[in-house]
Amino acid sequence: MFDNKETTDINQLGEFGLIDYLTKAVEITEPSTVMGIGDDAAVLDFKNKKTLISTDLLLEGIHFDLRYVPLKHLGYKAVQVNLSDIYAMNGRASQITFSIGLSSKFPLEAVEEIYEGALIACKKYNVDLVGGDTSASAQGLIISVTSIGFAENEKIAYRSTAKEGDLLCVTGDLGGAYVGLQLLEREKQIFLENPSIQPDLEGKDYIIERQLKPESRKDIVELFEAYNIIPNAMIDVSDGLASEILHICKASKVGCKLYEEKLPIDPMTYETAREFGLDPTVCALSGGEDYELLFTVPQDQYDKIKNQLDITIIGYITEENAGCEMISKSGHVHPITAQGWNAFKNNQ
Amino acid sequence: MFDNKETTDINQLGEFGLIDYLTKAVEITEPSTVMGIGDDAAVLDFKNKKTLISTDLLLEGIHFDLRYVPLKHLGYKAVQVNLSDIYAMNGRASQITFSIGLSSKFPLEAVEEIYEGALIACKKYNVDLVGGDTSASAQGLIISVTSIGFAENEKIAYRSTAKEGDLLCVTGDLGGAYVGLQLLEREKQIFLENPSIQPDLEGKDYIIERQLKPESRKDIVELFEAYNIIPNAMIDVSDGLASEILHICKASKVGCKLYEEKLPIDPMTYETAREFGLDPTVCALSGGEDYELLFTVPQDQYDKIKNQLDITIIGYITEENAGCEMISKSGHVHPITAQGWNAFKNNQ
Repeated sequence: MFDNKETTDINQLGEFGLIDYLTKAVEITEPSTVMGIGDDAAVLDFKNKKTLISTDLLLEGIHFDLRYVPLKHLGYKAVQVNLSDIYAMNGRASQITFSIGLSSKFPLEAVEEIYEGALIACKKYNVDLVGGDTSASAQGLIISVTSIGFAENEKIAYRSTAKEGDLLCVTGDLGGAYVGLQLLEREKQIFLENPSIQPDLEGKDYIIERQLKPESRKDIVELFEAYNIIPNAMIDVSDGLASEILHICKASKVGCKLYEEKLPIDPMTYETAREFGLDPTVCALSGGEDYELLFTVPQDQYDKIKNQLDITIIGYITEENAGCEMISKSGHVHPITAQGWNAFKNNQ
Repeated sequence: MFDNKETTDINQLGEFGLIDYLTKAVEITEPSTVMGIGDDAAVLDFKNKKTLISTDLLLEGIHFDLRYVPLKHLGYKAVQVNLSDIYAMNGRASQITFSIGLSSKFPLEAVEEIYEGALIACKKYNVDLVGGDTSASAQGLIISVTSIGFAENEKIAYRSTAKEGDLLCVTGDLGGAYVGLQLLEREKQIFLENPSIQPDLEGKDYIIERQLKPESRKDIVELFEAYNIIPNAMIDVSDGLASEILHICKASKVGCKLYEEKLPIDPMTYETAREFGLDPTVCALSGGEDYELLFTVPQDQYDKIKNQLDITIIGYITEENAGCEMISKSGHVHPITAQGWNAFKNNQ
């Protein structure tokens, strides 16, 4: 992807030189960061709040395909995917570490783009980059992100504390990232067969962006704070709505009723799914990578929730023995099954 | 390595199944762990202490060679390498996240061994495994560890706070891990040329173990606590003594005098280096991977330090303009230069 430009070999810099070069743009703005990059460990001060930690690996050929993922987007998405886990605890994300392993096929300019994307995400979400590791890899690009955040103990939303009678709610809309991926995969195939054909993604910006440049829902955690809403349970939608609902129900020992007609699906997602011969409901349930928040709140919070444009009530929590069921548009009852995205499937 | 045994394909379990299987042996024992594996993020409680975070990537073909590194040792070492950074801040390590990416050539039994090694390290060092990520990789084995710890603010030892007149001290002995690596590399070459020849590592246990199964220096942080010693500056010896000395001097804006004759080198390291035609002093200065602690203390702490069998005073800190110099056994003065281990060199 850098074939026609002047590029710089990373070996000219060495590891310490590379770290210095990449981190010169890093600013510390978060009050809880005592010491960022530059020592054996970062030093953070969360006073009497609880510390939250989450980590993800993103691997070339498994989690991303560099044939259609721009490097800057990749850096941005790697951060978003990980911050999402902190917001899913109803916490505030405050720092990340960002590690990268890259083979000799990547010039310095490639790493710079990835970092640039990561730093844009950090800046937009008020998160400090406080550490990481940079290494050669024998093959392919490897990104590992750890997110750190904090929360007051009584506001932390676990998966295991949904209660019978709770409203089941989801933010934003679902299935877009998955349908966007189908579009990118189709254009890749067409390009591979005939490189003179330009990709036809016109008018599909929204779902392409849902796949390539997802946003984690910091705004929802802030909305909860502003309206004094404390979810009983929460999880982020990374593997697909069905899989996440089952996680909450299993951990909380409850069941649920989900209404197909309530599922928030963007018209572009709906139409494009149809073009591909896909069921939009299945895309919403099992697509994954939406990075929306799925949560439950007590019914007495209904008045606070009902007018929030970006929150949809999609069902309610029942007792465990009632099972996890979806009521279809035609009124039929189906058990909810997890067909979430599974990194191991891609490797078979 | 599992060719002759019954093995289990990881795909049979899927990602969630694998996580459940691997983490069933995980115990939570550290009081600061509120919530470990099983939610979007781990929840930790460090009260009014500072939180410490460090992270490392370990990549097959760059950081380890599976032709002579047993998987259990690899899991153990991956944890030690990372804990070492927390101890280098004079902090207490309390949790880790452990992420692993592996290609389809690895059966379940291989992952189990890596985890077993990691959990042995956690148990021995009183650290909880509280999270991680598990993924397929397109090629090779990838390990990413993040260590979390805590410290009282006034006890944290940075790199940047060495003072003129400080004693320069190092724990344990140096160069062993590097000479152990030479031995393993030689036996690998012999084996590759003639597989019927068994490796000849007899009597070399100590330096082999320094390479394959290093121990981080939790005991030194405890010794500091017991004797009320607070180092002015500290760093762990991962890239080589010379490189670490230069890190401290650069960050602290000081110089130093180092005495070659004071360098702690184990007799087996010394003799084996000679067998390979290597200068033992160069192995100690530039070998790396010793995971000892290099620190500076004010001169008035001399009485507390001098009788510690596992601490050697190797020099002292000077003003910046005096430079960083080593006085050789013959009395000659040499500038100290970093020729530390550099992951990017291996990929050229």
